Amino acid sequence: MTVADEIIALEKAALDRWCAGDPDAFLDLSADDVTYFDPFRETRLDGKAALIALYDDLRGKIFAPRHEMIEPKVQVAGEAAVLTFRFVSWNGSEGNRVAWNCTEVYRREPEGWRIIQTHWSFTGAGLTA
Amino acid sequence: MTVADEIIALEKAALDRWCAGDPDAFLDLSADDVTYFDPFRETRLDGKAALIALYDDLRGKIFAPRHEMIEPKVQVAGEAAVLTFRFVSWNGSEGNRVAWNCTEVYRREPEGWRIIQTHWSFTGAGLTA
Repeated sequence: MTVADEIIALEKAALDRWCAGDPDAFLDLSADDVTYFDPFRETRLDGKAALIALYDDLRGKIFAPRHEMIEPKVQVAGEAAVLTFRFVSWNGSEGNRVAWNCTEVYRREPEGWRIIQTHWSFTGAGLTA
Repeated sequence: MTVADEIIALEKAALDRWCAGDPDAFLDLSADDVTYFDPFRETRLDGKAALIALYDDLRGKIFAPRHEMIEPKVQVAGEAAVLTFRFVSWNGSEGNRVAWNCTEVYRREPEGWRIIQTHWSFTGAGLTA
């Protein structure tokens, strides 16, 4: 299995659990020094403790059984692997479609690959504004 | 000079030129395999040739002499350095304030640090929608 295949498989498995209301796969994958951007915060979130607090608030609240990772690409740079992809999910009982851009920077650690940077944003946010 | 100081200085210098209508500093810094997200595109942009085409269209059109990098942070992982920051610019003659989240993944190459992943998004886009 290539590094790219390995990283994509880790991310897809974590997304499947995320979309079923379970944030623990992403928490298990995240490094202690993880940094995090998403469009619902005014600042970057720094460190795993802050991510745990955020994700604990979302536990059991996400329901998006239909979702798709689009055009994943992995760039390897030494001990780091940069995964970028688009993501579409159909959220909640209404099935509202939401489209995302995502960057995940993974770092190789003795216990496996760990995410040190997550950046989620809305695809085309500047086109619809 | 630490790696963090070096990376932040490279980025700030490129942003100063960007905000004066000159994209060449970012093009010089970008690797051939650079990947790029911003909120004005429906897809990721892959490769330096595509970035050159995009930036050439913007050459001379950006005017934001007042701008600020906020809370830059650098995470080093072997040959990669991940810079994250927020960025506020006051654009054009109207001075409209725009707030951004940014991720820049730099890779150490023989000729210096090169950007392999850029992700720009609007800070708090999900809060104002």
